[in-house]
Amino acid sequence: MGQKRILVVGLGLIGGSLAMALQGFEDFEVVGAVRSQTTFDKAEAMGAANRLTFDPAGELPGADVVILCQDPAGIVGFLQEHKDRFKPGCLVLDVCGVKTAVMEAAGCLPESVDFIGCHPMAGKEVSGIANAEGTLFRNTHFIVTPGPRATQEHLALLRRMADHCRFGDVIETTCQRHDEMIAYTSQLMHVIAVSVCDDDELFSCKGFEGGSFRDCTRVAALDPAMWTQLFTLNAPALAKVVAGVEDRLRRYRTAIENGDRETLYAMLSTASTRKKQIDLERARGDDVRPAF
Amino acid sequence: MGQKRILVVGLGLIGGSLAMALQGFEDFEVVGAVRSQTTFDKAEAMGAANRLTFDPAGELPGADVVILCQDPAGIVGFLQEHKDRFKPGCLVLDVCGVKTAVMEAAGCLPESVDFIGCHPMAGKEVSGIANAEGTLFRNTHFIVTPGPRATQEHLALLRRMADHCRFGDVIETTCQRHDEMIAYTSQLMHVIAVSVCDDDELFSCKGFEGGSFRDCTRVAALDPAMWTQLFTLNAPALAKVVAGVEDRLRRYRTAIENGDRETLYAMLSTASTRKKQIDLERARGDDVRPAF
Repeated sequence: MGQKRILVVGLGLIGGSLAMALQGFEDFEVVGAVRSQTTFDKAEAMGAANRLTFDPAGELPGADVVILCQDPAGIVGFLQEHKDRFKPGCLVLDVCGVKTAVMEAAGCLPESVDFIGCHPMAGKEVSGIANAEGTLFRNTHFIVTPGPRATQEHLALLRRMADHCRFGDVIETTCQRHDEMIAYTSQLMHVIAVSVCDDDELFSCKGFEGGSFRDCTRVAALDPAMWTQLFTLNAPALAKVVAGVEDRLRRYRTAIENGDRETLYAMLSTASTRKKQIDLERARGDDVRPAF
Repeated sequence: MGQKRILVVGLGLIGGSLAMALQGFEDFEVVGAVRSQTTFDKAEAMGAANRLTFDPAGELPGADVVILCQDPAGIVGFLQEHKDRFKPGCLVLDVCGVKTAVMEAAGCLPESVDFIGCHPMAGKEVSGIANAEGTLFRNTHFIVTPGPRATQEHLALLRRMADHCRFGDVIETTCQRHDEMIAYTSQLMHVIAVSVCDDDELFSCKGFEGGSFRDCTRVAALDPAMWTQLFTLNAPALAKVVAGVEDRLRRYRTAIENGDRETLYAMLSTASTRKKQIDLERARGDDVRPAF
């Protein structure tokens, strides 16, 4: 019996960082699959994986764990094209930001293949292997959405991998609930950031930004193709939370326009108290949920 | 001729930090005026000023520089109540986040008193003297809105004070333009942060926040009384930028609901490019405008 093998498909920011973080995990060899010579050269120079390949399909029969790190359309396409090449009994993961669409696509896999949707809640404003680092996941949340067929052995293996990458916690949920929550906690923040940057004032206000502006707009420098996919693959949940924030902005604006200090004070008090409460709960560590 | 004197009225986060940062400035004594025994004791223990007093009015005839660090209503009230007690030829400053309303209130001062509106673009999510620190202003923007009567001597003195506090730059503008810009770069971020925190999902999503959520909502734990004042004193400019972001959120939502990937991609590309461009300009240091 040879060495066990993890195949990371796609060495961008997340895939590259995972390949780096997973090196030295138990007795696994980490193989990184790339598409371009540029990425190959950069990954090789960085020592991003134990071995690099241009042929992920050829590696599938020998891979005990496969981690799909393409964009959502790339993951769905890869699953459909290669569904019969996976090693029986292997564990297949993905790392993209929407889970229902990916879990549905994984329904095409044979019964002997175990798929667990994953979403490492880590990132940067910049993409690509050049920005990858093995420490990217430290103290971040790792959300997993196991399907009904997920085995205890695979869940335990996944948890050991998460520990090795130094994730702060592992949170198990359903793909539907993941997508609802991520619409609010992540996708909405991106819609807000780009909406703020679309203002005519952006360039004329340069030099007048404080920390709040830099923080709110930090994620606006996003990858348009990737986020077009993420937004449209989670359209109902995202549209709902965007409509909610539109409604609340309108209510604040109305109170401001009317000079209605009483209503404004009441609204600001409620929101500020909610924020302080959740900050307190976070400081107490209540948000580190039990891992599976 | 005795020692020159700076009187800081109100030792909260900003006033306390300024009093600390200004100690050792040329041959000035820094006097801090407080209202409560609690603040007095804390300020004394921290060495926040060279001397502390409960009687700002009594200090006015001997103060060469007066820095009003109350909330906007407190500043306006102080100017009206004590307008005839200021030392002729003195320089009066304020540090609050709206400038037109304060500059108008300063119109009640005698001609011999020079008022320059100031807005240090620094802050924290927490308030009060306990959170003050002399390093708060390092590398932040210092916006000043001199009135027509401001003398070159006072502008030069203000600049030397800003240097001593280690501000990153001093930006001179009109109070009207300040209020328009601050509506967009600061107040809007606070309206957005509270609007996000008002969502029913806030507590159920705990543990699912990434950096973008924490960054966008950081400033939501605001002081409701202070921000009610700031928002209503800048109502027209603020309502305009809130309406603008509502409109753009609605356009993103419509494209998402319609699954209109082409429009969505075009919108995201434009916003992302704008953000990258302004980040680049900032990295080049173009935003450090010439000081007066």
